[in-house]
Amino acid sequence: MTDTQERNPGEPLRVGVLGARGRMGIEVCKAVDAADDLELVAAVDQGDDLSAVSGAGAQVVVDFTTPDVVMDNLRWCVEQGISAVVGTTGFTEQRLEQVRGWLAGKPDVSMVIAPNFGIGAVLMMQFAARAARYFESVEIIEQHHPRKLDAPSGTATHTARQIAQARAEAGLGPVPDATRDEVPGARGADIDGVRVHAVRATGLVAHQEVLFGTTGETLTIRHDSYDRVSFMPGVLLAVRAVRNHPGLTVGLDALLD
Amino acid sequence: MTDTQERNPGEPLRVGVLGARGRMGIEVCKAVDAADDLELVAAVDQGDDLSAVSGAGAQVVVDFTTPDVVMDNLRWCVEQGISAVVGTTGFTEQRLEQVRGWLAGKPDVSMVIAPNFGIGAVLMMQFAARAARYFESVEIIEQHHPRKLDAPSGTATHTARQIAQARAEAGLGPVPDATRDEVPGARGADIDGVRVHAVRATGLVAHQEVLFGTTGETLTIRHDSYDRVSFMPGVLLAVRAVRNHPGLTVGLDALLD
Amino acid sequence: MTDTQERNPGEPLRVGVLGARGRMGIEVCKAVDAADDLELVAAVDQGDDLSAVSGAGAQVVVDFTTPDVVMDNLRWCVEQGISAVVGTTGFTEQRLEQVRGWLAGKPDVSMVIAPNFGIGAVLMMQFAARAARYFESVEIIEQHHPRKLDAPSGTATHTARQIAQARAEAGLGPVPDATRDEVPGARGADIDGVRVHAVRATGLVAHQEVLFGTTGETLTIRHDSYDRVSFMPGVLLAVRAVRNHPGLTVGLDALLD
Amino acid sequence: MTDTQERNPGEPLRVGVLGARGRMGIEVCKAVDAADDLELVAAVDQGDDLSAVSGAGAQVVVDFTTPDVVMDNLRWCVEQGISAVVGTTGFTEQRLEQVRGWLAGKPDVSMVIAPNFGIGAVLMMQFAARAARYFESVEIIEQHHPRKLDAPSGTATHTARQIAQARAEAGLGPVPDATRDEVPGARGADIDGVRVHAVRATGLVAHQEVLFGTTGETLTIRHDSYDRVSFMPGVLLAVRAVRNHPGLTVGLDALLD
Repeated sequence: MTDTQERNPGEPLRVGVLGARGRMGIEVCKAVDAADDLELVAAVDQGDDLSAVSGAGAQVVVDFTTPDVVMDNLRWCVEQGISAVVGTTGFTEQRLEQVRGWLAGKPDVSMVIAPNFGIGAVLMMQFAARAARYFESVEIIEQHHPRKLDAPSGTATHTARQIAQARAEAGLGPVPDATRDEVPGARGADIDGVRVHAVRATGLVAHQEVLFGTTGETLTIRHDSYDRVSFMPGVLLAVRAVRNHPGLTVGLDALLD
Repeated sequence: MTDTQERNPGEPLRVGVLGARGRMGIEVCKAVDAADDLELVAAVDQGDDLSAVSGAGAQVVVDFTTPDVVMDNLRWCVEQGISAVVGTTGFTEQRLEQVRGWLAGKPDVSMVIAPNFGIGAVLMMQFAARAARYFESVEIIEQHHPRKLDAPSGTATHTARQIAQARAEAGLGPVPDATRDEVPGARGADIDGVRVHAVRATGLVAHQEVLFGTTGETLTIRHDSYDRVSFMPGVLLAVRAVRNHPGLTVGLDALLD
Repeated sequence: MTDTQERNPGEPLRVGVLGARGRMGIEVCKAVDAADDLELVAAVDQGDDLSAVSGAGAQVVVDFTTPDVVMDNLRWCVEQGISAVVGTTGFTEQRLEQVRGWLAGKPDVSMVIAPNFGIGAVLMMQFAARAARYFESVEIIEQHHPRKLDAPSGTATHTARQIAQARAEAGLGPVPDATRDEVPGARGADIDGVRVHAVRATGLVAHQEVLFGTTGETLTIRHDSYDRVSFMPGVLLAVRAVRNHPGLTVGLDALLD
Repeated sequence: MTDTQERNPGEPLRVGVLGARGRMGIEVCKAVDAADDLELVAAVDQGDDLSAVSGAGAQVVVDFTTPDVVMDNLRWCVEQGISAVVGTTGFTEQRLEQVRGWLAGKPDVSMVIAPNFGIGAVLMMQFAARAARYFESVEIIEQHHPRKLDAPSGTATHTARQIAQARAEAGLGPVPDATRDEVPGARGADIDGVRVHAVRATGLVAHQEVLFGTTGETLTIRHDSYDRVSFMPGVLLAVRAVRNHPGLTVGLDALLD
C-alpha cells in the first residue's frame, strides 16, 4: 500500500472526498477535478463504504461531513495511513487532543483541521494583527446580507481580539476618541477596546474592512467574499501542503507563511 | 452707480470680501484672485470702512463674518444694490424672513445664504435622497478624526433624515434586518430608522459613505473632504450664480440643478 | 377583454412572461411570483401558443426573447391591448420607430424597452452626468472578472460619453493632468477626454466607480453588481410603471424621476 | 562622553536634528518635542556648528539635509559615537558601502537610512508581497493629485516589481485576462506582468490600492496619505529602534517585524 501512496513527481496527487454530496463536498469534488496536479479518485457520502477510498489509493482525504461521524472518519484515515484535510465543524480542544494522540505514532500521516478555508480572510486577520502595533487608531467595519443573525460577525470579533492583543503587547494605550455627544450605538460595539461596526444590506454577501490610522495616513485591509467557492483555493492549498506538515495543524494560518 | 455694476460679457465680475482676514475670508480672497472671470476689488474686515467696497464698484459681496455684524452688512448691501453670498452662521428663520423683506422691493439685488458650501457634500445628500426610494436597504458610515465631539456628524444625521423622508414618501417599509444577537452598538445609531455608523481614527479628515442595497447589487455614494479649501468651489459657484437667482436663496442645493 | 385587463385597486397586476425558460425569463418568473402586487398568469416560450397569455388576461407582458421573434411578439401585444416591458436586445432606431408607429393609434397600450434594467447602474450614470459639471477632475475605474472580452466595458464607455457631454455643456475645459513621464497605458483609455481604467481579476463580478475631484474634496459614485438577479428590481419597477407612461419609453431612466 | 550617551530606563532619549529648518526638519522637531520618551536637545541647520549636537549629549541624530552635506554629517556622527536616522535622499549603493565601512569598527553606533518613512506605505508593500503568492489575479490602482509628473508613481512601480517577484517564486503564471478588444490604455501599464492604473484628480493627495483576486473572493490593501506629517510616526519608530539594530539598516522594512 505504501508504494501506491507515494507521490511521484509529475503524477497527480490522489484525493478522496468524504461528504461528497454535501454542499461543500460538491464544490470540493469540482475543484479537485479541475486541478491538473490533483486526481479525484473517490467521492463517498453517508451510506457508502470507506473502503472505496483506500481501494482507490487515495493519498489525501478531504472531510466535509458532520460532527457525529468525523472522528470515526479520521481514526480510519490514520489506520489506513491517509492524510486528511478537515473542514467539518465541532472540534473542541478535547477532540483535537484525541487526533494528536492518534497521529503521535504515525510519522507518515498528517492532518489539517481548519474552521475557515478562506485564504483572503485568514490573510486579512494576519495582516491586521501585524499592522495593529504601528497605528494609534483602528476600527472594523463588517458588512453582510440582512439575513445574518449575529452582529458583529464571528470573523470581526476574532479580528478585534487579535488586534487588541497585538496592541497590548506593543504597549499601546486606548485609541483616541473625544466623543462626548453620541446617539447610542453610533460608535459601534466595543470588543476588547476595538470599535466594530456591523452593516446589513440586501445585495451584500460577506465583507470586512479593517481601518488603521496614524498621523496623516490610513491603511485599510478589506476582504470581499462572494461565494462559498471562495473556500476552494484554501482547501486545495491544504490538500497540497498537508503531507509536508507533520502531525496536526490547526487553522490555515500555519500553511500561509 | 447702476451702470458700473452691470457685468459686461468678457469683463470679470467685481467681488468684495467682508471678513477678509478670517480663516475662511483669507481663502475666499485667494480663490477669487485666482479665478480669471472674477476680480477681487475690495477686502475688508473689522474696523475697515464698508465704503471701500461700494467705492470699488463691487457687484457681489462674499460675507464670512460673525452673527453679530452680518445683518448690518446685508442691509447695507441691499441699500447699495450689491448682491451677496453669505457663509456666516447663525441664521434663524426670523433672520431669513428679515432678509427676504429687505430684498422684496429690490429686484436687482439677490442673496445666497448657505450653511455648507461643499459641493460634494450637497450633491451626496441630493443623490442619496433620490436613490433612497429605489433600494430596500440603506446605511450610512461617516468617518472623522478622533477630536470630533459628536457622533454621528451633523451631515450624517441630516442625510439620514432626508433618506427616511424619501423612503416614507415612496411607501417603503423598514429596512430588512434579521439581527437577533447583537453586541450593543454593533448595528449603529438609529436615526429615523436609518442605521448610522460613526468611525473615528487619527489620520482621517471628514468622509461619508451612503450604501444602498437591493437584490444582487449595491450603490455607494462617498464624499471625502480634506480641507477647508474644499468650500471654495461652492463659494465661487454661488458668486457666479447669485445675480441670476432673484430674491433670497437658502442653501447651495437650489444652485445645483 | 378590456374589462378583465383593467387593474382594480388592491388586485394584483396580471403578468405574462415571454421567453420564460431562458436564463433571464426564469428569474423574471420567480421575481413576479414573489411580488405580492403581481400575479404570474402565463409563462410561455418557443413553441408555446401566445393565446395562453391573452387567455389568462395578462395586463402586462415581459419579453426576454430573441431579436428574431421579439417584433412579432410586440405587434401581437399591441393588437391584444397588452402593454409590454422588453429586455430583448437588438433594437435599432428603425425598430424603435416601428414600435412607436404601432402604439400611435393605441392610447391604452404602452411599452418600455431598455438595454439595462439595473437600477443601480442607471442611477450611477444619472448621478455621474449630473455631478460632472461641478468638478474639475473625473475618472472612471471599472472592475470585472477576467473572462470579459472588451475593455473598457460598454457601461463605462457610455458613462464617459455622458460625462464628456455634461462637461462640454457646462463649458469645462480639459481635466488637469501634468503627466510628462508615462509608462504606456498607466493613465488609462481616453474616451472623449475622460480617462477610463479597466481592472480585471478573478473573484470580481461587475463593478464601476466614478471619481470626481475638485479643490480639497472628492465625490465617488460606485456600483457593485453581483448577479443577474440584480436586474429584477428594475424589471418589476418597469412592470408596475409601464401603463402610466403612454407610448414607447426607451431606457429605465425616464421611469426613475 | 559614553556615559552621558547611555539611555537610562525612564529617561527620555536625547535627539538632535540636522536640517532643522527644512520642511521635513521642522516637522521632525515638532514630533520629537511632542513625544514623552524623546527629548529634542539640539536643532541645527546650515551655518550652525555641529558641536551644539554633541555638546548637548545627543544620543540619536535625525538627518533631513541635502545630498551634498549628508556624508560629512554621518562621518562626524560616527566619530562622535552618535547613532543616526537618515531621510536625506541621494544614497547610491556606493555611498551605502562607505557608511557600512565607517560603522564596521564601531559596534556602539548604528544607522537607519530610509527612502520612505511612511509606515503605512511600507506595510502595504510588505503585505502585498506576502499575499501575492496566494492569488491568481492582482492589479494596482494608484491615485494622486494632477500635478504629479510621472505615471505610475515610484511606489506603485516598486510594489508591482515585488509582487511580480513573489509570483515568480511561487511558480504562478501570468494573471488571467481574456481582453481581446481594448481601447488603448484601458488595461493600464504593464510592470513586470502586473497591470498598474494611475488616476489623477484634483482633491486627491497620495493613495494606492492593491487588489488581489481568486475564486469567489478579493483582498484589497489600501494606503491613503494626506500629509507629509504622515512620515513622522516612521521617523520616531526609527529613532527609538536604531540603537537596537547594529550596523547599517536600509529601509524601514527591517524595523517592522
